[in-house]
Amino acid sequence: MSAIRRRGLMLVLSSPSGAGKTTLSRRLLEADTGILMSISATTRPKRPNEVEGRDYLFVSTERFAEMMHHNEFLEHADVFDHRYGTPAAPVKQAIAQGRDVLFDIDWQGTQQLKERAREDLVSVFLLPPSHEELERRLKARAQDSDDVVSRRMAKAASEISHWPEYDYVVVNDDVDRAHAKILAILEAERARRTRLVGVGEFVAQLTR
Amino acid sequence: MSAIRRRGLMLVLSSPSGAGKTTLSRRLLEADTGILMSISATTRPKRPNEVEGRDYLFVSTERFAEMMHHNEFLEHADVFDHRYGTPAAPVKQAIAQGRDVLFDIDWQGTQQLKERAREDLVSVFLLPPSHEELERRLKARAQDSDDVVSRRMAKAASEISHWPEYDYVVVNDDVDRAHAKILAILEAERARRTRLVGVGEFVAQLTR
Repeated sequence: MSAIRRRGLMLVLSSPSGAGKTTLSRRLLEADTGILMSISATTRPKRPNEVEGRDYLFVSTERFAEMMHHNEFLEHADVFDHRYGTPAAPVKQAIAQGRDVLFDIDWQGTQQLKERAREDLVSVFLLPPSHEELERRLKARAQDSDDVVSRRMAKAASEISHWPEYDYVVVNDDVDRAHAKILAILEAERARRTRLVGVGEFVAQLTR
Repeated sequence: MSAIRRRGLMLVLSSPSGAGKTTLSRRLLEADTGILMSISATTRPKRPNEVEGRDYLFVSTERFAEMMHHNEFLEHADVFDHRYGTPAAPVKQAIAQGRDVLFDIDWQGTQQLKERAREDLVSVFLLPPSHEELERRLKARAQDSDDVVSRRMAKAASEISHWPEYDYVVVNDDVDRAHAKILAILEAERARRTRLVGVGEFVAQLTR
Protein backbone atom coordinates (compact mmCIF):
# COMPACT_ATOMS: atom_id res chain seq x y z
CA MET A 1 0.00 0.00 0.00
CA SER A 2 1.46 3.34 -0.98
CA ALA A 3 2.15 5.47 2.06
CA ILE A 4 1.56 9.12 2.76
CA ARG A 5 4.84 10.99 3.06
CA ARG A 6 5.41 14.62 3.89
CA ARG A 7 7.69 17.50 3.06
CA GLY A 8 9.71 18.77 5.96
CA LEU A 9 9.07 22.24 7.33
CA MET A 10 11.18 25.20 8.34
CA LEU A 11 10.45 26.18 11.94
CA VAL A 12 11.53 29.70 12.85
CA LEU A 13 11.77 30.75 16.49
CA SER A 14 12.26 34.48 16.91
CA SER A 15 12.22 36.59 20.04
CA PRO A 16 13.95 39.51 21.67
CA SER A 17 16.95 38.46 23.71
CA GLY A 18 15.72 37.72 27.20
CA ALA A 19 12.70 35.67 26.11
CA GLY A 20 14.30 32.26 26.53
CA LYS A 21 14.76 31.41 22.86
CA THR A 22 18.14 29.72 23.32
CA THR A 23 16.81 27.44 26.07
CA LEU A 24 13.71 26.54 24.08
CA SER A 25 15.70 25.86 20.90
CA ARG A 26 17.97 23.52 22.85
CA ARG A 27 15.00 21.76 24.43
CA LEU A 28 13.44 21.25 21.01
CA LEU A 29 16.66 19.85 19.54
CA GLU A 30 17.02 17.48 22.50
CA ALA A 31 13.39 16.30 22.27
CA ASP A 32 12.84 13.24 20.10
CA THR A 33 11.45 15.05 17.06
CA GLY A 34 14.24 14.55 14.51
CA ILE A 35 14.37 18.29 13.80
CA LEU A 36 17.73 19.56 12.56
CA MET A 37 19.34 22.89 13.44
CA SER A 38 20.06 25.07 10.46
CA ILE A 39 23.78 25.84 10.20
CA SER A 40 24.74 29.33 9.06
CA ALA A 41 27.78 30.34 7.10
CA THR A 42 29.72 33.23 8.61
CA THR A 43 32.77 35.31 7.88
CA ARG A 44 33.46 35.74 11.58
CA PRO A 45 36.55 33.92 12.92
CA LYS A 46 36.00 30.62 14.67
CA ARG A 47 36.10 30.80 18.47
CA PRO A 48 38.07 28.14 20.37
CA ASN A 49 34.96 26.26 21.59
CA GLU A 50 33.28 26.23 18.17
CA VAL A 51 33.31 23.36 15.70
CA GLU A 52 33.28 23.88 11.94
CA GLY A 53 30.07 22.46 10.46
CA ARG A 54 28.39 22.09 13.85
CA ASP A 55 28.26 25.72 15.04
CA TYR A 56 28.88 27.46 11.74
CA LEU A 57 30.36 27.03 8.32
CA PHE A 58 33.35 29.37 8.57
CA VAL A 59 34.00 30.94 5.20
CA SER A 60 36.17 33.72 3.83
CA THR A 61 34.72 37.10 2.89
CA GLU A 62 35.41 36.24 -0.76
CA ARG A 63 33.61 32.90 -0.55
CA PHE A 64 30.64 34.55 1.18
CA ALA A 65 30.39 37.17 -1.58
CA GLU A 66 30.55 34.43 -4.19
CA MET A 67 27.73 32.51 -2.48
CA MET A 68 25.64 35.67 -2.38
CA HIS A 69 26.37 36.30 -6.02
CA HIS A 70 25.11 32.80 -6.87
CA ASN A 71 21.98 33.33 -4.79
CA GLU A 72 22.94 30.45 -2.52
CA PHE A 73 21.49 31.91 0.68
CA LEU A 74 17.95 31.60 1.97
CA GLU A 75 18.62 34.66 4.11
CA HIS A 76 21.64 36.68 5.12
CA ALA A 77 22.54 39.59 7.37
CA ASP A 78 25.48 41.75 8.32
CA VAL A 79 26.09 42.08 12.05
CA PHE A 80 28.79 44.57 12.93
CA ASP A 81 31.77 43.65 10.72
CA HIS A 82 30.70 40.13 9.94
CA ARG A 83 28.33 38.43 7.57
CA TYR A 84 25.96 35.56 8.29
CA GLY A 85 23.85 33.56 5.88
CA THR A 86 21.82 30.34 5.64
CA PRO A 87 22.92 28.21 2.68
CA ALA A 88 19.80 27.05 0.83
CA ALA A 89 21.00 23.69 -0.48
CA PRO A 90 21.15 21.63 2.75
CA VAL A 91 17.81 23.05 3.91
CA LYS A 92 16.08 22.26 0.62
CA GLN A 93 17.52 18.75 0.67
CA ALA A 94 16.31 18.14 4.24
CA ILE A 95 12.80 19.46 3.46
CA ALA A 96 12.52 17.28 0.36
CA GLN A 97 13.47 14.26 2.50
CA GLY A 98 10.77 15.07 5.03
CA ARG A 99 13.18 16.38 7.68
CA ASP A 100 12.34 19.56 9.60
CA VAL A 101 14.83 22.36 10.12
CA LEU A 102 14.97 24.81 13.04
CA PHE A 103 16.03 28.44 12.52
CA ASP A 104 17.11 30.81 15.25
CA ILE A 105 16.85 34.09 13.32
CA ASP A 106 15.43 37.57 13.77
CA TRP A 107 12.50 39.21 12.02
CA GLN A 108 14.63 40.33 9.08
CA GLY A 109 15.82 36.80 8.39
CA THR A 110 12.26 35.54 8.79
CA GLN A 111 11.04 38.04 6.17
CA GLN A 112 13.67 36.79 3.74
CA LEU A 113 12.73 33.14 4.36
CA LYS A 114 9.11 34.04 3.78
CA GLU A 115 9.95 35.43 0.37
CA ARG A 116 11.95 32.36 -0.61
CA ALA A 117 9.94 29.53 0.96
CA ARG A 118 6.51 30.67 2.17
CA GLU A 119 4.87 27.26 1.94
CA ASP A 120 7.47 25.47 4.03
CA LEU A 121 7.77 28.13 6.72
CA VAL A 122 6.22 27.95 10.20
CA SER A 123 7.11 30.98 12.30
CA VAL A 124 6.81 31.31 16.06
CA PHE A 125 7.36 34.49 18.04
CA LEU A 126 8.32 34.04 21.69
CA LEU A 127 7.39 36.74 24.20
CA PRO A 128 8.76 37.19 27.72
CA PRO A 129 6.07 36.99 30.41
CA SER A 130 6.38 40.53 31.80
CA HIS A 131 8.29 43.79 31.69
CA GLU A 132 9.95 42.97 35.03
CA GLU A 133 11.08 39.56 33.85
CA LEU A 134 12.39 40.94 30.55
CA GLU A 135 14.38 43.61 32.43
CA ARG A 136 15.72 41.02 34.86
CA ARG A 137 16.92 38.82 32.01
CA LEU A 138 18.49 41.75 30.18
CA LYS A 139 20.50 42.65 33.30
CA ALA A 140 22.82 39.80 32.54
CA ARG A 141 25.57 41.00 34.81
CA ALA A 142 25.40 42.95 38.05
CA GLN A 143 27.89 45.53 36.79
CA ASP A 144 25.78 46.50 33.77
CA SER A 145 25.07 50.21 33.81
CA ASP A 146 21.48 51.45 33.55
CA ASP A 147 22.48 52.82 30.19
CA VAL A 148 23.49 49.42 28.85
CA VAL A 149 20.25 47.87 30.11
CA SER A 150 18.24 50.70 28.54
CA ARG A 151 19.88 50.11 25.21
CA ARG A 152 19.17 46.37 25.41
CA MET A 153 15.55 47.12 26.32
CA ALA A 154 15.23 49.44 23.31
CA LYS A 155 16.63 46.73 21.05
CA ALA A 156 14.21 44.17 22.55
CA ALA A 157 11.31 46.57 22.01
CA SER A 158 12.27 46.99 18.38
CA GLU A 159 12.44 43.21 17.80
CA ILE A 160 9.17 42.61 19.68
CA SER A 161 7.34 45.10 17.46
CA HIS A 162 7.51 42.50 14.68
CA TRP A 163 5.31 39.92 16.41
CA PRO A 164 2.41 40.53 13.95
CA GLU A 165 4.51 39.03 11.15
CA TYR A 166 4.53 35.55 12.73
CA ASP A 167 2.15 32.59 12.45
CA TYR A 168 2.16 31.76 16.17
CA VAL A 169 2.77 33.70 19.36
CA VAL A 170 3.94 31.87 22.50
CA VAL A 171 4.41 33.59 25.86
CA ASN A 172 7.29 32.00 27.74
CA ASP A 173 5.77 32.25 31.22
CA ASP A 174 6.80 28.69 32.03
CA VAL A 175 9.54 26.96 30.08
CA ASP A 176 7.89 23.51 30.18
CA ARG A 177 4.61 24.89 28.97
CA ALA A 178 6.25 26.94 26.22
CA HIS A 179 8.23 23.86 25.16
CA ALA A 180 5.03 21.77 25.02
CA LYS A 181 3.39 24.43 22.86
CA ILE A 182 6.28 24.47 20.41
CA LEU A 183 6.18 20.66 20.21
CA ALA A 184 2.42 20.82 19.54
CA ILE A 185 2.96 23.40 16.78
CA LEU A 186 5.57 21.13 15.18
CA GLU A 187 3.34 18.05 15.40
CA ALA A 188 0.28 19.87 14.11
CA GLU A 189 2.10 21.50 11.20
CA ARG A 190 3.43 18.08 10.18
CA ALA A 191 -0.19 16.99 9.64
CA ARG A 192 -1.08 20.02 7.54
CA ARG A 193 -2.61 18.87 4.29
CA THR A 194 -0.45 21.09 2.10
CA ARG A 195 2.70 19.38 3.39
CA LEU A 196 1.52 15.84 2.70
CA VAL A 197 2.63 13.97 -0.39
CA GLY A 198 0.88 10.94 -1.87
CA VAL A 199 -2.53 11.38 -0.21
CA GLY A 200 -4.26 11.12 -3.58
CA GLU A 201 -2.66 7.72 -4.31
CA PHE A 202 -3.32 6.53 -0.74
CA VAL A 203 -6.98 7.49 -1.00
CA ALA A 204 -7.31 5.83 -4.42
CA GLN A 205 -6.15 2.55 -2.89
CA LEU A 206 -8.44 2.97 0.14
CA THR A 207 -11.52 3.16 -2.02
CA ARG A 208 -10.51 0.99 -4.97
CA MET B 1 -0.53 43.55 33.58
CA SER B 2 -3.04 43.09 30.77
CA ALA B 3 -3.18 39.47 29.65
CA ILE B 4 -3.35 37.91 26.24
CA ARG B 5 -6.70 36.26 25.66
CA ARG B 6 -7.87 34.30 22.65
CA ARG B 7 -10.94 33.64 20.59
CA GLY B 8 -12.15 30.07 20.68
CA LEU B 9 -12.00 27.98 17.55
CA MET B 10 -14.33 25.64 15.71
CA LEU B 11 -12.74 22.22 15.29
CA VAL B 12 -14.30 20.07 12.60
CA LEU B 13 -13.59 16.36 12.43
CA SER B 14 -14.84 14.76 9.24
CA SER B 15 -14.30 11.28 7.90
CA PRO B 16 -16.08 8.48 6.11
CA SER B 17 -17.89 6.14 8.46
CA GLY B 18 -15.43 3.45 9.44
CA ALA B 19 -12.50 5.80 10.12
CA GLY B 20 -12.96 6.03 13.88
CA LYS B 21 -14.38 9.54 14.09
CA THR B 22 -16.87 8.74 16.85
CA THR B 23 -14.17 7.21 19.06
CA LEU B 24 -11.78 10.10 18.47
CA SER B 25 -14.46 12.73 19.11
CA ARG B 26 -15.30 11.04 22.41
CA ARG B 27 -11.62 10.83 23.36
CA LEU B 28 -11.21 14.54 22.64
CA LEU B 29 -14.26 15.49 24.70
CA GLU B 30 -13.00 13.35 27.60
CA ALA B 31 -9.48 14.83 27.46
CA ASP B 32 -8.91 17.84 29.66
CA THR B 33 -9.12 20.48 26.91
CA GLY B 34 -12.37 22.27 27.77
CA ILE B 35 -13.67 21.81 24.23
CA LEU B 36 -17.47 21.72 23.94
CA MET B 37 -19.49 19.54 21.58
CA SER B 38 -21.68 21.47 19.19
CA ILE B 39 -25.34 20.53 19.67
CA SER B 40 -27.48 20.32 16.54
CA ALA B 41 -31.14 21.07 16.23
CA THR B 42 -33.16 18.34 14.51
CA THR B 43 -36.72 17.63 13.45
CA ARG B 44 -36.25 13.91 14.01
CA PRO B 45 -38.14 12.43 16.99
CA LYS B 46 -36.21 11.90 20.21
CA ARG B 47 -35.11 8.33 20.84
CA PRO B 48 -35.59 6.87 24.32
CA ASN B 49 -31.91 7.07 25.29
CA GLU B 50 -31.48 10.65 24.06
CA VAL B 51 -31.60 13.76 26.22
CA GLU B 52 -32.93 17.10 24.98
CA GLY B 53 -30.14 19.69 24.93
CA ARG B 54 -27.40 17.09 25.40
CA ASP B 55 -27.80 14.97 22.25
CA TYR B 56 -29.89 17.34 20.17
CA LEU B 57 -32.27 20.24 20.38
CA PHE B 58 -35.50 18.57 19.27
CA VAL B 59 -37.60 21.06 17.35
CA SER B 60 -40.72 20.97 15.23
CA THR B 61 -40.60 21.21 11.45
CA GLU B 62 -42.18 24.65 11.74
CA ARG B 63 -39.63 25.88 14.27
CA PHE B 64 -36.78 24.56 12.11
CA ALA B 65 -38.13 26.40 9.07
CA GLU B 66 -38.41 29.57 11.13
CA MET B 67 -34.81 29.26 12.32
CA MET B 68 -33.67 28.78 8.72
CA HIS B 69 -35.71 31.77 7.67
CA HIS B 70 -33.96 33.88 10.31
CA ASN B 71 -30.57 32.62 9.20
CA GLU B 72 -29.94 31.11 12.63
CA PHE B 73 -27.95 28.10 11.42
CA LEU B 74 -24.22 27.91 10.80
CA GLU B 75 -24.93 24.87 8.62
CA HIS B 76 -27.85 22.59 7.98
CA ALA B 77 -28.66 19.45 6.04
CA ASP B 78 -31.56 17.19 5.20
CA VAL B 79 -30.97 13.50 5.84
CA PHE B 80 -33.77 11.27 4.60
CA ASP B 81 -36.95 12.80 5.99
CA HIS B 82 -35.36 14.84 8.75
CA ARG B 83 -33.56 18.13 9.06
CA TYR B 84 -30.45 18.90 11.06
CA GLY B 85 -28.79 22.25 11.70
CA THR B 86 -26.21 23.91 13.96
CA PRO B 87 -27.64 26.99 15.72
CA ALA B 88 -25.13 29.81 15.37
CA ALA B 89 -25.79 31.71 18.62
CA PRO B 90 -24.33 29.28 21.21
CA VAL B 91 -21.28 28.66 19.02
CA LYS B 92 -20.61 32.36 18.51
CA GLN B 93 -20.99 32.98 22.23
CA ALA B 94 -18.55 30.17 23.12
CA ILE B 95 -15.97 31.40 20.57
CA ALA B 96 -16.18 34.97 21.88
CA GLN B 97 -15.56 33.64 25.40
CA GLY B 98 -12.48 31.72 24.28
CA ARG B 99 -14.13 28.30 24.38
CA ASP B 100 -13.54 25.84 21.56
CA VAL B 101 -16.34 23.90 19.90
CA LEU B 102 -16.13 20.46 18.27
CA PHE B 103 -18.18 19.60 15.18
CA ASP B 104 -18.86 16.12 13.89
CA ILE B 105 -20.11 17.02 10.41
CA ASP B 106 -19.55 15.94 6.83
CA TRP B 107 -17.88 17.82 3.97
CA GLN B 108 -21.07 19.66 3.06
CA GLY B 109 -21.49 21.03 6.58
CA THR B 110 -17.81 21.94 6.64
CA GLN B 111 -18.20 23.92 3.42
CA GLN B 112 -21.08 25.86 4.95
CA LEU B 113 -19.09 26.60 8.12
CA LYS B 114 -16.22 27.80 5.98
CA GLU B 115 -18.47 30.31 4.28
CA ARG B 116 -19.82 31.59 7.60
CA ALA B 117 -16.75 31.49 9.85
CA ARG B 118 -13.54 30.92 7.90
CA GLU B 119 -11.24 32.54 10.46
CA ASP B 120 -12.47 30.47 13.39
CA LEU B 121 -12.52 27.14 11.57
CA VAL B 122 -9.91 24.39 11.91
CA SER B 123 -10.79 21.34 9.83
CA VAL B 124 -9.35 17.86 10.19
CA PHE B 125 -10.02 14.96 7.85
CA LEU B 126 -9.56 11.48 9.29
CA LEU B 127 -8.59 8.62 7.01
CA PRO B 128 -8.77 4.90 7.75
CA PRO B 129 -5.39 3.16 7.58
CA SER B 130 -6.12 0.77 4.68
CA HIS B 131 -8.72 -0.57 2.29
CA GLU B 132 -8.91 -3.84 4.25
CA GLU B 133 -9.47 -2.05 7.54
CA LEU B 134 -12.10 0.26 6.04
CA GLU B 135 -13.96 -2.74 4.59
CA ARG B 136 -13.73 -4.59 7.91
CA ARG B 137 -15.20 -1.61 9.77
CA LEU B 138 -17.98 -1.19 7.21
CA LYS B 139 -19.00 -4.81 7.68
CA ALA B 140 -20.69 -3.90 10.91
CA ARG B 141 -22.75 -7.05 11.14
CA ALA B 142 -22.02 -10.56 9.93
CA GLN B 143 -25.34 -10.79 8.11
CA ASP B 144 -24.67 -7.72 5.94
CA SER B 145 -24.94 -8.64 2.28
CA ASP B 146 -22.08 -7.86 -0.08
CA ASP B 147 -24.42 -5.40 -1.69
CA VAL B 148 -24.90 -3.43 1.54
CA VAL B 149 -21.15 -3.32 2.14
CA SER B 150 -20.56 -2.18 -1.45
CA ARG B 151 -23.00 0.65 -1.02
CA ARG B 152 -21.33 1.72 2.24
CA MET B 153 -17.95 1.58 0.54
CA ALA B 154 -19.22 3.77 -2.32
CA LYS B 155 -20.56 6.28 0.21
CA ALA B 156 -17.21 6.25 2.06
CA ALA B 157 -15.35 6.79 -1.21
CA SER B 158 -17.53 9.76 -2.01
CA GLU B 159 -16.93 11.35 1.42
CA ILE B 160 -13.18 10.62 1.26
CA SER B 161 -12.88 12.41 -2.08
CA HIS B 162 -13.31 15.69 -0.19
CA TRP B 163 -10.06 15.42 1.82
CA PRO B 164 -8.40 18.24 -0.19
CA GLU B 165 -10.86 20.73 1.32
CA TYR B 166 -9.48 20.26 4.85
CA ASP B 167 -6.65 21.99 6.75
CA TYR B 168 -5.22 18.81 8.25
CA VAL B 169 -5.21 15.13 7.31
CA VAL B 170 -4.75 12.48 10.00
CA VAL B 171 -4.52 8.76 9.24
CA ASN B 172 -6.11 6.76 12.04
CA ASP B 173 -3.66 3.86 12.00
CA ASP B 174 -3.41 3.89 15.79
CA VAL B 175 -6.11 5.49 17.90
CA ASP B 176 -3.70 6.83 20.56
CA ARG B 177 -1.47 8.37 17.96
CA ALA B 178 -4.38 9.90 16.06
CA HIS B 179 -5.76 11.27 19.34
CA ALA B 180 -2.37 12.82 20.17
CA LYS B 181 -2.26 14.46 16.74
CA ILE B 182 -5.71 15.97 17.18
CA LEU B 183 -4.71 17.29 20.62
CA ALA B 184 -1.57 18.82 19.08
CA ILE B 185 -3.62 20.48 16.34
CA LEU B 186 -5.94 21.94 18.97
CA GLU B 187 -3.07 23.20 21.13
CA ALA B 188 -1.16 24.65 18.18
CA GLU B 189 -4.19 26.39 16.70
CA ARG B 190 -4.86 27.99 20.09
CA ALA B 191 -1.48 29.73 19.78
CA ARG B 192 -2.14 31.01 16.27
CA ARG B 193 -1.55 34.74 16.19
CA THR B 194 -4.79 35.57 14.42
CA ARG B 195 -6.79 34.07 17.29
CA LEU B 196 -5.05 36.03 20.03
CA VAL B 197 -6.60 39.15 21.50
CA GLY B 198 -4.73 41.82 23.43
CA VAL B 199 -1.20 41.04 22.22
CA GLY B 200 -0.68 44.67 21.22
CA GLU B 201 -1.49 45.92 24.73
CA PHE B 202 0.58 43.16 26.34
CA VAL B 203 3.58 44.05 24.17
CA ALA B 204 3.18 47.76 24.91
CA GLN B 205 3.45 47.00 28.62
CA LEU B 206 6.42 44.68 28.09
CA THR B 207 8.47 47.40 26.47
CA ARG B 208 7.14 50.48 28.22
